[in-house]
Amino acid sequence: MMRIAALQMQAEAGHVAANLRRIEQAALEAREKGASLLVTPELAVTGYGAGEAILRLAEPADGEIARRLGEIARSTGLAIVTGFAERADGTVYNSALFVETGKPAVVYRKSHLYGDYERALFRPEKPSACIIEFKGLKLGILICYDVEFPENVRRLARVGAQAVLVPTALPASDHAALIAQKMIPVRAFENQIFVAYVNHCGADERFAYAGLSGVAAPDGTLIAKAGAQREALLLAKVEPADYRVSAAANSYLADLRI
Amino acid sequence: MMRIAALQMQAEAGHVAANLRRIEQAALEAREKGASLLVTPELAVTGYGAGEAILRLAEPADGEIARRLGEIARSTGLAIVTGFAERADGTVYNSALFVETGKPAVVYRKSHLYGDYERALFRPEKPSACIIEFKGLKLGILICYDVEFPENVRRLARVGAQAVLVPTALPASDHAALIAQKMIPVRAFENQIFVAYVNHCGADERFAYAGLSGVAAPDGTLIAKAGAQREALLLAKVEPADYRVSAAANSYLADLRI
Repeated sequence: MMRIAALQMQAEAGHVAANLRRIEQAALEAREKGASLLVTPELAVTGYGAGEAILRLAEPADGEIARRLGEIARSTGLAIVTGFAERADGTVYNSALFVETGKPAVVYRKSHLYGDYERALFRPEKPSACIIEFKGLKLGILICYDVEFPENVRRLARVGAQAVLVPTALPASDHAALIAQKMIPVRAFENQIFVAYVNHCGADERFAYAGLSGVAAPDGTLIAKAGAQREALLLAKVEPADYRVSAAANSYLADLRI
Repeated sequence: MMRIAALQMQAEAGHVAANLRRIEQAALEAREKGASLLVTPELAVTGYGAGEAILRLAEPADGEIARRLGEIARSTGLAIVTGFAERADGTVYNSALFVETGKPAVVYRKSHLYGDYERALFRPEKPSACIIEFKGLKLGILICYDVEFPENVRRLARVGAQAVLVPTALPASDHAALIAQKMIPVRAFENQIFVAYVNHCGADERFAYAGLSGVAAPDGTLIAKAGAQREALLLAKVEPADYRVSAAANSYLADLRI
């Protein structure tokens, strides 16, 4: 059994040190509440709406930001998943870093960029299916728009992912609730896995965010959920064995014919 | 623009003549209300829970049942999609027949059978992507469990389907509302198409059905929906041009990378 924490966060666009302090504070609180993993939003370190500044603040996956996240992981004993701008291959990726003390960090790069804003800043990576083993569970990572494509979640589930962690930056819109409260539970249910969808709240100079972070269980229930407006630290128990009845009745992975 | 009608139906298990009369009555009512297409549930002609009797009542796609459906189509001017048990290839398929006056009938065979009951009665067909052109719209058909797999809807959307018609037999269960009211709208939204999900209601000696038939629009709204308990004839306007804003903001098919 593992308890995960999800930080619905109001990042300060362009203020890396402030955002890292906020993540550290959340990690301390998550530890107090018995979590062993903290997930934060897409580009949590730079803010999502920082525009061109994101390119200046991009760092390699073994840079100073990674070092600071490693310190937070070490001092709290938590593993941490954080969205950041990654400098590599002479370009910049919209990435998430998985940091766990005593193991090499794992980088996931977003494959499905949304809209002109992201496409101007980042290079998309090819879709992949990297599984992280953590405390007896198999974890996958997607970022924001990635999870809206059923193919991306299925790819991870078919190689054994039991939980998919999704840093996101979902803007407030007519369909934000549909994505956060219907699509995310459906992604969990149609693969019989957990999906943690971790969004920003508030606004920066470019975007207003929808909040509505949540953790969906294999039976499609939202076992933790945040409101639209405020920061929140969600806690959720991730125990696949609690959902054996659902897995037996909804055997999608076994029944799939392609 | 096309108006479709969906019959949430309490079929009489094993009573083909009674079920065909019920379909005829619904077709007359649908014509009065301006529909040009009527969709009925999975195995509407035999009833879903008729067990072994379904095998005895199975007919070729050009048999007596097809002839009667052709008569109903001709007398009402509607096209009709009806679930029936199809005898072919020395076996029985769980099929749907699309009947339109003046054109050859089209048969769709279910590819994803659910559970021991269906697997004992039917042979599954390989997944396919047959498109029916009707009144300027491209239509696809899936049956029940098929639509719960995002791959099956995507396959149709990628070859141009604008609406997917889904005769179903969803039993009452803890997750029936999740499937009917979250998954179906998400299938529509993630492909920016219409999905008409047409269920049984009431009970036979084997199953109690969930009702909750509905028509989801490309923006993920349920533009027509039935309750859990009673028969209903739903009407819904299928006009892709009404959802151009949603299609532009949620350009999943254009953005998909595999």
